[in-house]
Amino acid sequence: MSLGEAIARLPYASAPFEPGHVWLAGAGPGGLGCLTLDVVAALGQADVVIYDALVDQDVLQVAVQAEHFFVGKRAGKPSTPQEEINRLMIEHARAGRRVLRLKGGDPNTFGRGGEEALALAKAGIPFRFLPGITSAVGALAGAGIPVTLRGVNKAVILATGHAAGTSDDLDWAALAKTGQPLVIYMGMRNLDRIADALMEGGLSGTTPAAILMSATTTDERVLTGTLSEIAEKARAEGFGAPALIVVGEIVRMRETLRQLQQEGTLIP
Amino acid sequence: MSLGEAIARLPYASAPFEPGHVWLAGAGPGGLGCLTLDVVAALGQADVVIYDALVDQDVLQVAVQAEHFFVGKRAGKPSTPQEEINRLMIEHARAGRRVLRLKGGDPNTFGRGGEEALALAKAGIPFRFLPGITSAVGALAGAGIPVTLRGVNKAVILATGHAAGTSDDLDWAALAKTGQPLVIYMGMRNLDRIADALMEGGLSGTTPAAILMSATTTDERVLTGTLSEIAEKARAEGFGAPALIVVGEIVRMRETLRQLQQEGTLIP
Repeated sequence: MSLGEAIARLPYASAPFEPGHVWLAGAGPGGLGCLTLDVVAALGQADVVIYDALVDQDVLQVAVQAEHFFVGKRAGKPSTPQEEINRLMIEHARAGRRVLRLKGGDPNTFGRGGEEALALAKAGIPFRFLPGITSAVGALAGAGIPVTLRGVNKAVILATGHAAGTSDDLDWAALAKTGQPLVIYMGMRNLDRIADALMEGGLSGTTPAAILMSATTTDERVLTGTLSEIAEKARAEGFGAPALIVVGEIVRMRETLRQLQQEGTLIP
Repeated sequence: MSLGEAIARLPYASAPFEPGHVWLAGAGPGGLGCLTLDVVAALGQADVVIYDALVDQDVLQVAVQAEHFFVGKRAGKPSTPQEEINRLMIEHARAGRRVLRLKGGDPNTFGRGGEEALALAKAGIPFRFLPGITSAVGALAGAGIPVTLRGVNKAVILATGHAAGTSDDLDWAALAKTGQPLVIYMGMRNLDRIADALMEGGLSGTTPAAILMSATTTDERVLTGTLSEIAEKARAEGFGAPALIVVGEIVRMRETLRQLQQEGTLIP
């Protein structure tokens, strides 16, 4: 049966998107198949969509009735300041519009959703979170790497690498000492530094590592190697931001699965 | 516009679900609104659905054309052994059926998706992962707790508590020493033990903690307290498995948001 027929069989109805409300939503890691029903329903009801660079342009075709505001980074230009995004949400909500704030991945996982919710709450604007598939979950699925695997890991650390090397940095040594795999968002610019910090913290240079670019889309690219070589390999192969970095034994599963399956039968 | 009209505007087509293939899919944390388009499309095409206890019964109404196998825990009875689930998937795939293996949350995040993929690969069965919103992301959104918040945390640890107190346990002290918040799956039975281990590892007893039950559904219940009191409070309030445990300063955001907003305007 078609997707439309399948959806018609679900006893699902979107919560009404009230005028003057803001919904903070996640579009998932890229592919349209990762959109949730709540987010598609919200796109169909919104009067205003305020979206980031990581949101697929195709997603916006749903919200033809809405005014669209792009607030992400584009071609070297910096992204819109957070205060300006907050102002835009509040202004349109106060004018009685249904405001959909749409981000790539999940709004609350390295997505500033909490900050934006706080600004809305302070302004007295009602809001709701619509979660999305966070990049770690979506990208690892696409690459054939389990987030957790029995006998390998009982925890996983999601971290941001954007502050690596600054005084505001994470304690990478403490993270390394947990012995648990890491999935690092926004770390490509600091990949050398992060790899070094993890090795100084006790992770072996032979720990498997991977870089996942354009996850869950047809442009998906995956690079694997060891922690000590991954930064150099990424440069040589032209891997850059936005991409996820994965460090830990879970990465081995990708090759194991690929070797077991005959060429061409592993999907994707 | 209706959800059906909204979806018709998307240039989305599900990958064809080939006979003899297995798709390992996640239904998200509970509410139907968290289902992805890929999963709904898969439900409409499947010949066999093998599903767990955490999958909403309403979801199965889509797959009227399919044979359904329940392999989760029910009313005290243990869940189907993993080998039996693997056998079931392989047998039906070999008979040329489209097999949808559907789990709550995300199949690869504390969901044994990797293990099942390995069994399929060994048997020469083609498979694909369809990621779902993992409980940590979905449940925290429902409770108004950001997974990450600027100025509070740059990482988050997802962990399972099911082995707490056994020789196979996580090093909770090492996790505590990272200073990062934890979201703990399957930890309710061992909540006292986990809280004690985290405090022994250096976390203050005053660290905010929360228990999230039936996340993203209309039965959602949230309990907040401090790390030292949360186990006792959970007993007193009748909170039990399945539920998520959250430990860390991010939990405070829930109260902050609720206090800022007027009664009744926080959604959900």
